[in-house]
Amino acid sequence: MRGLSAFPITPSDADGVVRVDALQRLLRPLVDARVHSIGLLGSTGSYPYLSRPERRRAIEAAADEVAGRVPLLVGVGALRTDEAIRLAQDARAGGAAAGLLAAVSYTPLTEDEVFEHYKAVAGESGLPLCIYDNPTTTHFRFSPELIARLAALPGVAAVKLPGGEPQALAAQMADLRARVPADFALGHSGDWFAVEAMLAGGEAWYSVVAGILPQVCMDIVAAVRAGNATEARRLNAALEPLWGLFREFSSLRVVYEIAERRGVCAAEPPLPVRRLPEAARQRVAAVLDGMDPALLR
Amino acid sequence: MRGLSAFPITPSDADGVVRVDALQRLLRPLVDARVHSIGLLGSTGSYPYLSRPERRRAIEAAADEVAGRVPLLVGVGALRTDEAIRLAQDARAGGAAAGLLAAVSYTPLTEDEVFEHYKAVAGESGLPLCIYDNPTTTHFRFSPELIARLAALPGVAAVKLPGGEPQALAAQMADLRARVPADFALGHSGDWFAVEAMLAGGEAWYSVVAGILPQVCMDIVAAVRAGNATEARRLNAALEPLWGLFREFSSLRVVYEIAERRGVCAAEPPLPVRRLPEAARQRVAAVLDGMDPALLR
Repeated sequence: MRGLSAFPITPSDADGVVRVDALQRLLRPLVDARVHSIGLLGSTGSYPYLSRPERRRAIEAAADEVAGRVPLLVGVGALRTDEAIRLAQDARAGGAAAGLLAAVSYTPLTEDEVFEHYKAVAGESGLPLCIYDNPTTTHFRFSPELIARLAALPGVAAVKLPGGEPQALAAQMADLRARVPADFALGHSGDWFAVEAMLAGGEAWYSVVAGILPQVCMDIVAAVRAGNATEARRLNAALEPLWGLFREFSSLRVVYEIAERRGVCAAEPPLPVRRLPEAARQRVAAVLDGMDPALLR
Repeated sequence: MRGLSAFPITPSDADGVVRVDALQRLLRPLVDARVHSIGLLGSTGSYPYLSRPERRRAIEAAADEVAGRVPLLVGVGALRTDEAIRLAQDARAGGAAAGLLAAVSYTPLTEDEVFEHYKAVAGESGLPLCIYDNPTTTHFRFSPELIARLAALPGVAAVKLPGGEPQALAAQMADLRARVPADFALGHSGDWFAVEAMLAGGEAWYSVVAGILPQVCMDIVAAVRAGNATEARRLNAALEPLWGLFREFSSLRVVYEIAERRGVCAAEPPLPVRRLPEAARQRVAAVLDGMDPALLR
C-alpha cells in the first residue's frame, strides 16, 4: 500500500458474470509495468455490483494472471458487516495482500458504527485492511479522529484518502501523520490530484488511469521518488486533458472508452451505469488522438 | 399511493433472516388502524440489507397477515437494474399493489441512467411504481424535469418526495403538479414535515412513525382531509418531541426503540447499523414517558 496502485475495470456481461479473459488482458500490462499493487474490485472495478461468487472468480483470475509478481489489494466492501467479513475472508483465501474496505452505506452511518464495522472485518478475516475513504460513492466522510481510532486497530494498515484542495494538503498530511502509527500508510485517490498529494508526502497513489495507462503513472511516481517535482508536474500537466474528461464524465466511464479504443476490451459497466453517450465518446476520442502517444501507455 | 402509508421496520436476525412473527405483529395494528397502504421493505424496513429470498419471505408474511385489507407498497430498489427488475417481479407475484423504487447508487448516476433504470423496471415487471426520491440514502436528487419524464412512462404512478423547507412547499407542489399527469400522485416523507406538505396539497404521507404509531397519524390525515388544519397542526405540534428525536438520532434508530418499549418487538437493525447507545435510549424513553398516552397509538 505504497507507491502506485492501479485500479482496472472489471469487465462483466449483462448478467454480472465476470469476463475472466478480458480482466486478465487488462492486468497483463499492469504486471509488465511493475505497478506496486493492483487495486482489484475497487470502485472502478464495480465491486458493489458484483455478487460474492463473481468477486471470488475475479480474484482467482487475477491471482492466476499476476502469479505473485504484484500484490493484490482487493475491494471487500459491502452494505452488511457479515457480508464484508465473508468477502475479506474470500480475498485472503484467494491470495490478496490486503483488502480495501469502504464504508458502504444506505442508512447513513455514525462514526461508532463505522469503527465497529472495520474492527469486525479486520478481526474476523485476518486480512490487512486499507481504509477506503470515498465520500463520492459512500457519502460517509472519515474524520481525522476516526482514522486515528481505526489506525490503532490491529490489521488496519493504510488509508486511501479522497482528492481535495491541493492548498489544504500539507496541513492535512501533517495532521494525520501525527495521529497514526509511523508504519501506517497515507495515500490518495483522485488522479488529477495525485502528484501534489505525493509531493506533499502521500505514500500511495490509488489510480484509475493507471489501470489502463500504467507506464506514464509509473514515470510520475519515479519522478516524485527521485525528488524531481518538475518532471512529475510536467507529466501531470500533459495528462490534464484526460483529467478534464475524468472530472466532467467520471473517471470510471472514461476508462471504459479508453479500454475499448486501445483494443484491450469492449465492455459495458453494470446497468444502471452506462457507457458515455456518443457525443462524449467523441470528446474522449479527440482527447486521446490529440495526446502525445508516449503518454498513452 | 394516497393517504397514509405506514413504513414498519423489518425485524431480522443477525444473519439477515426475516423474523416473520415479529413482522406480522408489527403489521397487525397498521391493518387495525386501516392505514391507506403499508410501505413494506422501505428504507425503515432496511430493504437494501436483505437478500432477495428474505425480501420475498417478508412479502409473503405481510400478504398473509394483511389478507388484502390494506394495499402493500413494496420497496424494490437495488444497485443493479436486473436485480431491481427481479425484485419488482417478486413483489408483483407476492401481491404488492405497487413498488417503491429508489435510485440506489454507488457510482453516482446521471439523470438518463436513472430514467432508463425506471423504464426497465416498470416495463419488465408490470408493477406500478412509486418514485422514491430519498437523497439522504441514495444521494441521487430527482430534478422536476426528471420526475416529469418518469411520470410520463406507463406504470410510473407516484412520487415520494423528501422533506424540505416548508416555505418552499407551495411553489414546489405547483411546479410539479403542472409537469405531471393529473392522476400522478405527489406525496412526501419526513414525518415532521408531513402536515405542512399535506396542507400544501400533498396527496400521500409516507410515514416512519405510522409504522409503529398508526392511529395518531390517521387522526392527522383525517383532520387534513376534513379541512381542519388547526387540529392537524395541534397533533403535529404534540408530536414535536418525537420529531426532535428523529432529527437527532434518525427515525429508523428511534422506531426500533419505540417498538421495543411498546412490547411489539425487540430487534436489532442489520449491522453495521446499530441500536442507539444507552444514553440516547434513555432520551427516547423520557420523551415517550412524557407524552400524552393518547398520542402513542
